[in-house]
Amino acid sequence: MKFAQRTVKTSSAGLDAIFAASGPNVISFAGGYPDATLFPEHAMQAAFSESFAQHSGSLLQYSTTAGYLPLREKLADRMNRRDHLNLKADDILLTQGAQQGIDLTARLLLDKGDGVIVEGPTYIGGLAAFDAYEPTYYEVPIEEDGMDITKLQKALMQHQVKLIYTIPDFQNPTGTVMSVEKRQAMVQLANQYDVVILEDSPYRDLRYTGENLPTIKSFDTEGRVISLGSFSKILAPSLRLGWLTAAPELLAALTALKAAADVESSHLVAVAVDTFMNDNDLDAHIDAMKQVYQTKRDAMLNALERYMPKDVHFNHPDGGFFLWLTLPEGFDMQHFMTAELLPEYNVSLVPSHHLYASKSIENGARLNFTNVSEATIESGIKMLGQALNDALHPAQVNQI
Amino acid sequence: MKFAQRTVKTSSAGLDAIFAASGPNVISFAGGYPDATLFPEHAMQAAFSESFAQHSGSLLQYSTTAGYLPLREKLADRMNRRDHLNLKADDILLTQGAQQGIDLTARLLLDKGDGVIVEGPTYIGGLAAFDAYEPTYYEVPIEEDGMDITKLQKALMQHQVKLIYTIPDFQNPTGTVMSVEKRQAMVQLANQYDVVILEDSPYRDLRYTGENLPTIKSFDTEGRVISLGSFSKILAPSLRLGWLTAAPELLAALTALKAAADVESSHLVAVAVDTFMNDNDLDAHIDAMKQVYQTKRDAMLNALERYMPKDVHFNHPDGGFFLWLTLPEGFDMQHFMTAELLPEYNVSLVPSHHLYASKSIENGARLNFTNVSEATIESGIKMLGQALNDALHPAQVNQI
Repeated sequence: MKFAQRTVKTSSAGLDAIFAASGPNVISFAGGYPDATLFPEHAMQAAFSESFAQHSGSLLQYSTTAGYLPLREKLADRMNRRDHLNLKADDILLTQGAQQGIDLTARLLLDKGDGVIVEGPTYIGGLAAFDAYEPTYYEVPIEEDGMDITKLQKALMQHQVKLIYTIPDFQNPTGTVMSVEKRQAMVQLANQYDVVILEDSPYRDLRYTGENLPTIKSFDTEGRVISLGSFSKILAPSLRLGWLTAAPELLAALTALKAAADVESSHLVAVAVDTFMNDNDLDAHIDAMKQVYQTKRDAMLNALERYMPKDVHFNHPDGGFFLWLTLPEGFDMQHFMTAELLPEYNVSLVPSHHLYASKSIENGARLNFTNVSEATIESGIKMLGQALNDALHPAQVNQI
Repeated sequence: MKFAQRTVKTSSAGLDAIFAASGPNVISFAGGYPDATLFPEHAMQAAFSESFAQHSGSLLQYSTTAGYLPLREKLADRMNRRDHLNLKADDILLTQGAQQGIDLTARLLLDKGDGVIVEGPTYIGGLAAFDAYEPTYYEVPIEEDGMDITKLQKALMQHQVKLIYTIPDFQNPTGTVMSVEKRQAMVQLANQYDVVILEDSPYRDLRYTGENLPTIKSFDTEGRVISLGSFSKILAPSLRLGWLTAAPELLAALTALKAAADVESSHLVAVAVDTFMNDNDLDAHIDAMKQVYQTKRDAMLNALERYMPKDVHFNHPDGGFFLWLTLPEGFDMQHFMTAELLPEYNVSLVPSHHLYASKSIENGARLNFTNVSEATIESGIKMLGQALNDALHPAQVNQI
């Protein structure tokens, strides 16, 4: 019994190893979870009940692969308002979270060996999805304002590439936002080199400070940008509901691939989310979430300021779920976490190793601030500071 | 912008063309839908409400890729009882319907060009899922008691094959049940030729007459059988909830692939279905459904008996959703439907063409009897009989 070559690769992506690093007594900055206390449980319960009452005879039946039309209309309206786009419902496909959008895009475009440009670091689940199609990765470093465009251009000049995968808004894992200039430049390069851009943006609505920037899609002149959104971070992950926007020819092919993968997303869930949006102000709900997350982000920045050794760098994200630690070169974060931080301090984070397609950068880490309380942030970051101090400056340990 | 080779193939599978053949005035025997009037809407509404009340704080959060443990325990117990298996919860992965189980199995095993044995005819969605991995198909004809085992053996002797795809219980599209002897023989051949069997069995619980036969999995001695089940046909399709059972090594790899494809299935839906099963007797619900479906099957057999021309053959399935029409050789069902049956009689069915991987058999058709009323069955089959009479015996038309 021989597995396909793709399987051998995907199975070793190490997703499980990372998220297993949380137990009942562990302070986990490793996850990518929303704060469960912010879920609109009562309103969602009411939306499900109302959906049953109002959609008798069709709610539990098959629907269409594209998904429930009124919800797709709402999503189009919302993006048109928010992002000054000009979308119709038929430009949208409902998906199983944004994750399925990555999988379907890879399935649409990638034959074995085809070139994909990814950010370094990037979303580990993106790499896991791409792995199944055995691409050749070209990793372009993330700078403070997004992907290094000079290196992106160089990669496009030197290699045969079909897809650029980017998370422009509050990137997972770094929290970085891509500048307007780079968004425009990326589209121009995609046009020049005949490449598709996959704009994965599940955190876009979660900006705490600063002004929103236009989507990459808003600069798309040739129908080359596939955009992904998700209700996981703004409403609830267990809905498993996301959406995908693409030009008609791409969308038709992606819809056929979705039908082959799982027929369609849950009509029941789509109707309930549509009902929720009829009966509640989603934007007001998001605003309330943002206040809590901003406070948590500030608490983490404040604690980092106080407890990090001077040679540890951290960034100041304007939104999203994560910030990024950079340790001095040569530091092995994976070893530090498994040998010291987790067993001795009961604190976990995501070491950089698995977040790079190249697996070449060891001295970084992702910290999540949304699914931990302020008190836990304070005590956890304090312990992380001590542990890093111990590891970086062992001579000082006995003096504390 | 060049699509992957797999995409070009999948997009042309013709799924849409087939199911588009139903409008408001069309009597459709083409779909594969359950009867929506049989859905337990009130009980399901209550189960969702109770889930919100009892799982506050976790219901809307991420869960695990394997899925909600109590539901997997129930599924294991149910299969152990029904099929004399010895499964534990950890032998089961929740999926987006059985369809995702096909996709994940193909992803696990198939490199481009690898051999897959499929039944002729088979489930069109199975072919669509396999197409994405560009296998080489070997088509083995279905007989009255399942796959032709002599031809199966010959195919295994002559070709490099990695996977046998079979629907042993009330097969889609023919309604055929595979005999016990053939189930045993298939496992022996799989052992001998080092092949995995994918046992796709969404209709297994829907037997109206005769005795249930053991699953193929019950004869599995080497952990080579991956079994798929689904709530779509016994509870509701819009739950998009199915399950997959496989030996530990296979299951671990399939779970990693599921994580890469869509992270996990909806925890909310899994808890609600578990709650439904706590508060209701699923088997009693299925028994009630079976009574209705048996009546519809009998109505269709009765109408076929009365209205079909003598040279049209139809089978007598003991369960499931479908029966199979065989027309004289040379008859082109696809042409008949699009040129005569649909435009002139407003009746639709699924012609055999797309249901064969080889696309070589034109004189068959699938008829669905679950999603049509008895009165519609009577009038629709009467018109189908007239239309076939017109087509097969044009001289007789004026005498009716």
